[in-house]
Amino acid sequence: MEKSINVTVWCETGDALGAYPQGLHNAIAEFLSNSNNFKTVRAVSLEQPEQGMSEEILRNTDVLLWWGHCFHHLVSEETAERVHKRVLSGMGLIVLHSGHASKIFQRLLGTETNKLRWREIGERERVWKIAHHHPITEGVPEYFDIPKSEMYGEFFHIPAPEELLFISWYEGGEVFRSGCTFTRGGGKIFFFSPGHESYPIYYMPEIQRILVNAAKWAAPPGFPEILYDEQKTPPEGKYGFRV
Amino acid sequence: MEKSINVTVWCETGDALGAYPQGLHNAIAEFLSNSNNFKTVRAVSLEQPEQGMSEEILRNTDVLLWWGHCFHHLVSEETAERVHKRVLSGMGLIVLHSGHASKIFQRLLGTETNKLRWREIGERERVWKIAHHHPITEGVPEYFDIPKSEMYGEFFHIPAPEELLFISWYEGGEVFRSGCTFTRGGGKIFFFSPGHESYPIYYMPEIQRILVNAAKWAAPPGFPEILYDEQKTPPEGKYGFRV
Amino acid sequence: MEKSINVTVWCETGDALGAYPQGLHNAIAEFLSNSNNFKTVRAVSLEQPEQGMSEEILRNTDVLLWWGHCFHHLVSEETAERVHKRVLSGMGLIVLHSGHASKIFQRLLGTETNKLRWREIGERERVWKIAHHHPITEGVPEYFDIPKSEMYGEFFHIPAPEELLFISWYEGGEVFRSGCTFTRGGGKIFFFSPGHESYPIYYMPEIQRILVNAAKWAAPPGFPEILYDEQKTPPEGKYGFRV
Amino acid sequence: MEKSINVTVWCETGDALGAYPQGLHNAIAEFLSNSNNFKTVRAVSLEQPEQGMSEEILRNTDVLLWWGHCFHHLVSEETAERVHKRVLSGMGLIVLHSGHASKIFQRLLGTETNKLRWREIGERERVWKIAHHHPITEGVPEYFDIPKSEMYGEFFHIPAPEELLFISWYEGGEVFRSGCTFTRGGGKIFFFSPGHESYPIYYMPEIQRILVNAAKWAAPPGFPEILYDEQKTPPEGKYGFRV
Repeated sequence: MEKSINVTVWCETGDALGAYPQGLHNAIAEFLSNSNNFKTVRAVSLEQPEQGMSEEILRNTDVLLWWGHCFHHLVSEETAERVHKRVLSGMGLIVLHSGHASKIFQRLLGTETNKLRWREIGERERVWKIAHHHPITEGVPEYFDIPKSEMYGEFFHIPAPEELLFISWYEGGEVFRSGCTFTRGGGKIFFFSPGHESYPIYYMPEIQRILVNAAKWAAPPGFPEILYDEQKTPPEGKYGFRV
Repeated sequence: MEKSINVTVWCETGDALGAYPQGLHNAIAEFLSNSNNFKTVRAVSLEQPEQGMSEEILRNTDVLLWWGHCFHHLVSEETAERVHKRVLSGMGLIVLHSGHASKIFQRLLGTETNKLRWREIGERERVWKIAHHHPITEGVPEYFDIPKSEMYGEFFHIPAPEELLFISWYEGGEVFRSGCTFTRGGGKIFFFSPGHESYPIYYMPEIQRILVNAAKWAAPPGFPEILYDEQKTPPEGKYGFRV
Repeated sequence: MEKSINVTVWCETGDALGAYPQGLHNAIAEFLSNSNNFKTVRAVSLEQPEQGMSEEILRNTDVLLWWGHCFHHLVSEETAERVHKRVLSGMGLIVLHSGHASKIFQRLLGTETNKLRWREIGERERVWKIAHHHPITEGVPEYFDIPKSEMYGEFFHIPAPEELLFISWYEGGEVFRSGCTFTRGGGKIFFFSPGHESYPIYYMPEIQRILVNAAKWAAPPGFPEILYDEQKTPPEGKYGFRV
Repeated sequence: MEKSINVTVWCETGDALGAYPQGLHNAIAEFLSNSNNFKTVRAVSLEQPEQGMSEEILRNTDVLLWWGHCFHHLVSEETAERVHKRVLSGMGLIVLHSGHASKIFQRLLGTETNKLRWREIGERERVWKIAHHHPITEGVPEYFDIPKSEMYGEFFHIPAPEELLFISWYEGGEVFRSGCTFTRGGGKIFFFSPGHESYPIYYMPEIQRILVNAAKWAAPPGFPEILYDEQKTPPEGKYGFRV
């Protein structure tokens, strides 16, 4: 089948980050690209014109992956607004790890998604698969371990997810809803917590498989502009039985 | 049982509105009060200090009913922010009819909830009960008719509701998810579309029963301030089995 | 992409049915086959050995479409049991119209799914699309009319569907959740009410598009036999941090 | 408020069980009764006439708690059928611990709910509260520990719960959806996994609080017999606008 999905990976910095000397966005773009599932895969970052999220780039993006951590506050309301509108009109969004505290995720979910427990001591995380029928979990083992991870724990301030795909267990005693789906307008959203700048988690094959699956799942069938036309009341004449 | 629920009805105007010479908010406050289910019921409006939504009023509100139509744009971001935070910390919210386009509802749901079909020709609306086990539908007939109503039709730009309690049928050929529940943080939210300023819909016993039930359902067990404390990482010591 | 999905259409009779002189199952199999999306499409019926649902046929079925109306009681418990087990292990199931009262649908949902309103006077049905992001609704207009249909109305005794894709409006005053998804074990289930033996509904392009989409959506990524192995407690050794 | 809820606790044996010399059902009935929330609380068991689940007892039960472990196979199809029908008509059901494998739970959910991981070495279980707005979690701390528990782990073969209230963490490395709600017909269902015959878990105040809350939550507003009448097609005359 011809490839039709255009993917963009956004990062709050274009610089080297911990385990990712090439840049975290480039590391993710590389394995997505190597999967040969996508028409185009591009990496952009905050320092670029229009914060890397110009109308032109968004218009050519079917699925957006979002990484932010220290600089959420530098993302302008205008940028958040452009991304928000594009998601509502159908663009898929994959929110990565600390992206839970991003302006765009909070706007879409309506809660203080920045609130959760966390602890950073490089403890073991075990990721359990809760949904066995879902395209995002295809080919993923029933569970897998991340030897050193940052703990994210409940209570996580999100609305109840539409689908709960993964639950994480931590050596220190916490649990977390680590893989969740949501829909907002035409846009499919996947939040996936495993991943961290200083641990080489995005090099793990299980993580790469999940993100490739997610980018395929989140791609829209097309952008249903009708969503914006259909608000017109149909002409009376349309109703055969009313005199 | 002693009554413990404090209810506030907010309206974008304190003036007479169509079928409600006493003010729409006063009309709603009156039947809620007569139900003898609530400790206090107060009506407030946009012209009042801090747009009727001061910290002090919110602190004394367990459940808020919200009516807006022509003046959504006059509600300040500060007011929307105060209400939003109170809902997240546990206040119940009942969004009435044209309140679907309010700033607060859009902030909580994350979609363009202002978008839906509509037609105003006083046609028949039939409200069907879809959930028979729910506190909000208790004592409501399997369906009832509103002789003259404003049509609200799909597609309605909301996230999939957590519970779908009512679906409306319209003489002109449309359907609508007219009773929906959502949760955001500690706050329970009920959207109910039937109701209009120029038709005497809020005088109908079925409508009054539904709104009384909803205000009881939406009341929080208390305001779990813990939601804001619990984000602290528990001290290592809390984990008995880690040396 | 190479086609991998094997589809079977089951009917309670192999004979001509109303608008379908070739047999209703053959009519459905024909348009599914013509869509060129599936590896194999076969039509089977109740009169065949093992009621058309032998282990061998099930083993070679990824997605099953089920039509029954007058002879639900003739389907043996053994047949229902075989189909039930196959769905749990991953086979997609599409339940058509009066199939709502079938033994297999009731076993999977746990409620008296035979209960709903109905009226057969050939009135107009209007099918509204409620989900714009879903693979099953791809390419389907925001609504379409069925000039003559059998009315199915609420209350329909199903558990709340995981996704509500379509709501039907009827000229006579009813509404119905006409397109619903469920998941049971590895199996994805789609119930779609439009369709009737005496009206030529299965010849409508919108209906055919929906059923082709649904058969693609319901196909499993593979049959996760692991669902049955994974119940073994993992050996102690698997846990690095416990002595 | 006058008490109106009649509770019945069913156990597969009336004998002493591990930590419960008085009988497990009697231990549970005792703390429910002491909570002063219920009109009547009775304990019944498998050895009694009609397996403790006669029509007369069911007719006088608003909420049923179910404990079974070794003798699920001794529960007759007739008993399971009577309980199933009563749940559909509105009786609340609370399924306790090993009751996950009971005939009644499997009939209601439609999946092989007997399938899950388990390990019995008396390890620590930590129960995390995931929903802060729910009547069942009222007054329950954000998490609490069970010093010695039987491990129940994912993948648990249930349909996605309507509400996920608790997730359990185990010292050995597993997680479990330990508090889940479902609805079937008029009946509200709560599954709660903590609890075991040989550990004194049902004496813990957090566990007792959850079960008292759950019994109040699951009580029906009344038994909507209308569910069974309303299937009649309304007379033509009901539709004013059809000639």
